[in-house]
This record gives sequence, C-alpha cells and structure tokens, in this order.
Amino acid sequence: MDKLNLDQHISRQFNRELEDVRNRVLAMGGLVENQIAGAIRSLIESDASVAQAVIDGDGQVNAMEKEIDEECNLILARRQPAASDLRLVIVILKTITDLERMGDEAERIARLASRLAEGDQPAHRYRELGRLGGYVQSMLRDALDGFARLSPKVAVDLARADETVDAEYEVIMRQNITYMMEDPRNVRRTLDMSFVARSLERIGDHAKNIGEYIIYLVEGKDLRHAPVEEMEREIGGGGKESESP
Amino acid sequence: MDKLNLDQHISRQFNRELEDVRNRVLAMGGLVENQIAGAIRSLIESDASVAQAVIDGDGQVNAMEKEIDEECNLILARRQPAASDLRLVIVILKTITDLERMGDEAERIARLASRLAEGDQPAHRYRELGRLGGYVQSMLRDALDGFARLSPKVAVDLARADETVDAEYEVIMRQNITYMMEDPRNVRRTLDMSFVARSLERIGDHAKNIGEYIIYLVEGKDLRHAPVEEMEREIGGGGKESESP
Repeated sequence: MDKLNLDQHISRQFNRELEDVRNRVLAMGGLVENQIAGAIRSLIESDASVAQAVIDGDGQVNAMEKEIDEECNLILARRQPAASDLRLVIVILKTITDLERMGDEAERIARLASRLAEGDQPAHRYRELGRLGGYVQSMLRDALDGFARLSPKVAVDLARADETVDAEYEVIMRQNITYMMEDPRNVRRTLDMSFVARSLERIGDHAKNIGEYIIYLVEGKDLRHAPVEEMEREIGGGGKESESP
Repeated sequence: MDKLNLDQHISRQFNRELEDVRNRVLAMGGLVENQIAGAIRSLIESDASVAQAVIDGDGQVNAMEKEIDEECNLILARRQPAASDLRLVIVILKTITDLERMGDEAERIARLASRLAEGDQPAHRYRELGRLGGYVQSMLRDALDGFARLSPKVAVDLARADETVDAEYEVIMRQNITYMMEDPRNVRRTLDMSFVARSLERIGDHAKNIGEYIIYLVEGKDLRHAPVEEMEREIGGGGKESESP
C-alpha cells in the first residue's frame, strides 16, 4: 500500500475519491462473483429461476461499470493524477472492462443453463463443468484479493491457474465430441455444454488479465502477453515484493 | 473534427502527439483487418500456411496495443488533458483493447482453420461462415472509418449490423446442429465451425463497442448497453450531427 502513496496526498478529498473508487471496483467484483456463482448453480441444479435472476442481474453489472467509468473520468479531469495515482485510475478502467465481460459470460452461461434445464438431465450432472466453474471462481476471488491487497504475486498464481483451466477445458471438449458422436440425441445439449465450457474458460482469461494489471499498478511494468516465467522473474527478482503486512 | 478542438491547442507538440496516437490506432485497426481477412481466407481456402501467418501475426497486434497504451499513459501523465482531449485518450485506450481482442479472435479462427484444413473439405466450402465473415469485416471497416471521421452516426449502423450478424449466427448454429445429428463423422469438424462462427460474432460485438466509444467521444454520452433506438434518438436529435465535411 505504501508504494502507492495512497495516503500521502495533499488533498484528503482526493484520497477519499481514490479509496471510494477502489471500493466500488471491489463491490462490482463481488457482484460479478455472485453472478458467476448463480450461473454455475443454475446449470448444476437445472434451476431456470436462478438462471433468470442472473440474466436480470447483468444490467446492474453494466450500470456499475458505467458509474465507475464516469467516476474515473471525473478524477482524471479534475485531479489530473500522476504516477501511481494515474496508474491506479488506468488499471481501474481496465479492470472494470474485464469484470463487465465476465458478467456477460455469466449471463451467457445462465441463458444456456436455462435452455438445458428444459431438457432431460444427464447422469453426469455437469460434474466436469462444475469443477471448471470452481476453478475460475477461485481465480476471480484471487484476482479481487490481489487487487485489494495490491499483491503482484497473485498475477503469477493466476497465470498458472489459467494453464490448468485451459487444460481442463480441452479435456471437457474432447469428452463432448465423444458424447456427440455416440448419440445424435446428445448433440444439442452437448453443444450448449461446450459453450458453457468456453465461457468459463474466458472468465479465467479475464481473471488472469486483472492479475497483469496489478503488476502494472504496483511495479509499473506492462507484462501482458509475457510468459509466466518472465512474470515471476520480474516481480520476484528485486525484492520488490509488496504484499501488505 | 472542429468539435474536438484538435487543432486549437496552445502546444503544437501536444497536437502532434494526439494526431500521432490517433493514426497509430488506425494503423493497428488496419493490421487487425488484415488478420481477420487472413483468418477467413485460411478457412475458406483450407490454407494452413495463411493460418500460420495469422497466428504469427498476433504478436504484432499485441505489441501495437502495448505501444499505444504506453503513449496514452505518457500523454495523460505529461499533458493532463481535459474535456474532449481527455475523452479522446480514454476512447483510444478502450478502442485498442477491443482491437486486440478482435486480433485474438482472428488468431482463434486461424487455429481452427488450420485444424480444419487437415481433414476432408466439406462440399459447402464454409459458404455461410464466409458470408458472416464478410459482414463483420465490413463492420470493422465502418468502425475504423467512423473513428477516423469522428462520425457518431456509424454507431447506429454498427448496432443494426450487429443485429444482422447475431441473426446469421443463430441460423448457422441451427444448421450445425443438424449436420452433427445427421452424421457423427461431422461432429468434430462442425464443432470447430461453430467456434469459428462464435468468434466472428464476437468480432461484430467488438466493432459495435467501438461505435459506442465514438458517440462518447463526440457527444460526451455513454450509450453502452443502450437500445439502438435510444442511440439514434440521442445522436440524431439535437442537430448535433458532426460528420466532417
């Protein structure tokens, strides 16, 4: 926290504004977490009413993104922040875009779950998708936690978790192809399940993005598209570890 | 153009910087256009070497995003822009994110095309996907054109075009389900084709996003998630039409 000088501003009001907008990002993140949890639950439990609640809830995610976006624009215009304050505002603008996209994926999953709930329920009860969902949910939790604690180390964990998610996704897709080839009656449902898997995998990508923004925020380095080893070297190297005590 | 006061800055150097970064966005857009065109061509012509060129080219798209991003950060930090200049920088930051994502989709399509090129070629030669690809290519062209001319009217056209793209996408998906049910040997290929369709549909979404940023840039209104009718009312209404002569 100290590295970002959040409490060394001449203007206490400015401090409060930055603190406020950070808290709003975390609140938006919490809402998106709920949306994703609801989407996965609606799938596993074949519950169309939970799915509908998620679909209806996406408007609130969008509204929060818009509000935070406007608040950031106001801060940029009025306060003309520099250095780490400026990075914070830029990172927030990027983070909320990823959160909003995760919300869109949750809505997509809920729509698919709603359609799947109409048909027969498969014996496997979407076990693999539930597991993949669990992975990406914990990725989002870590990303928000890393953002709250300004911990760049989280980015490395997220990059590694994303590799696991991608591998799980491939396993699910291979399995889906087998289901569809075995029996044409499985095609429609399995195609929907494939899209759920794809959406979950993308949620993992977005969580990973947030990790990379945290590195940029804390270390001032843009490590997007960098391999995880480089990321680890860059943040682990110079004793720049900046986890809050 | 006049509404944005691009040439009324005290500092000519600042003017040049803004002009430069705008041109770079257009250059990045041109590169992404090529990537998408290559991806579609590699699919239609079953040409794995074209697909490979697209896959290799994605690094350049990512590098351009990073460079423009850094340039925007420098401008924000040094020039502390206000009003329409600030909006321009924010819009550029958002636009390059969407362009980079379109580049990712092009890469995904190329990877699928490369895999599809290994198998037998279907009689339909991906005609529907080629048509969907044509639609989203012209959406991106319109978006970049709208950005260059600062024309908010483009946003309305893009929102309407996106509705057409979504409808075409649904038709393709229904057709794909039929293919897969008809013959299990079609499953693998048709699943890949479904993902191509999904990626094309997303490219359309990103082009629509750019249209919405242009409205925000020119009119100062955030009309994301607004229905197309509201968009039309807002930009058509008060004689605020601001197409360059």
